[in-house]
Amino acid sequence: MSEPLPPCVLVVEDNPDHAELVIAALDEHPGGLLIERAADGEEALRYLRASVGSTEGDTAHRPALVLLDLRLPKVDGIEVLRQMREDDQLRQVPVVVLTSSSASRDMNQAYSHHCNSYLVKPLGYGELTELMGWVRHYWTECNKTPREP
Amino acid sequence: MSEPLPPCVLVVEDNPDHAELVIAALDEHPGGLLIERAADGEEALRYLRASVGSTEGDTAHRPALVLLDLRLPKVDGIEVLRQMREDDQLRQVPVVVLTSSSASRDMNQAYSHHCNSYLVKPLGYGELTELMGWVRHYWTECNKTPREP
Repeated sequence: MSEPLPPCVLVVEDNPDHAELVIAALDEHPGGLLIERAADGEEALRYLRASVGSTEGDTAHRPALVLLDLRLPKVDGIEVLRQMREDDQLRQVPVVVLTSSSASRDMNQAYSHHCNSYLVKPLGYGELTELMGWVRHYWTECNKTPREP
Repeated sequence: MSEPLPPCVLVVEDNPDHAELVIAALDEHPGGLLIERAADGEEALRYLRASVGSTEGDTAHRPALVLLDLRLPKVDGIEVLRQMREDDQLRQVPVVVLTSSSASRDMNQAYSHHCNSYLVKPLGYGELTELMGWVRHYWTECNKTPREP
C-alpha cells in the first residue's frame, strides 16, 4: 500500500512570473499540495485528459482544483472550460477562474461555461497569499468530488 | 443613498431543525449576512425568480450563494439546479449543495447539473460551524459574480 498523494492543483497560467507568484502563494500555507502548471490551454487539456484516462495508479494526480487564467495562448480559458464541461470524465473537476479582469463580460462568459467560481487576482502578494489560503482550504478540504465520474 | 445590504445567503432545506442549525452555524461568524430560507424547491425558485426579476431597488436581495439540500418536497434539489442553469438571470448565482449524502451518484448528478460546489453536512455542530465559516467567507468575500447577468 502506497501513501495517498496530497491533493493536486493545476495552475493554468501563461505568464511565468504570474504562475510563480500564484504557486508561491499556494505554497505558503501548511499541508501538502501537489502543484502542477500548464502554460497554455492546449497543455492544460492534455494534462487533464491524461489525468483521467490513465491507469488506476495514476488517478491520484487528477486535480482537486484547476486554477484557470482566461487569456491563454493556443486554446483560451473559456475554450478549456467548454471542452472540460463536454467531457464526461472532466465535468466533475472544479475550475476556479483566476484572472486580473473584473469585467462583467468575462464573468458572464465564465459562468455561462460553468466555471465553479471566479476570482479576481489581487495586486499585492500579501492579498494573493491570503486569497490562496482560502482557495486551497475550501477546494481541497471542504469541497467533495466523486471518486469515479 | 441607502446603506448597501449585506450579502444574502438562501438556505434551501425542508427540515426545520436542520435549517435552524445551518442558519445558526452561518450566524456564528462575524460580519453581516442576510439569511433567507426556503422550505422546498418550489419556494426556492419563486424566491430566486423574484430576486432577479424585481426592480432596481430590490436587486441587492439576489443571493450571493444558495445552499441547496438535494432531497426536497415539491421540486427536488437537482430540478432546482436544472431550472436555475437554464435561466439567463439565475445561471450566475452560485449554488453549493449541502447534503448528508456522500454517495458518488448524488455528487455526479449535482456536478452534471452544474452545482458550483458539493459539501457533505458534518454530524457535529462544531464541525458544521467551522465549515459554514469557510463557506460564507469564500462565497461572499472571495468569489465574484457579475452585477448584471
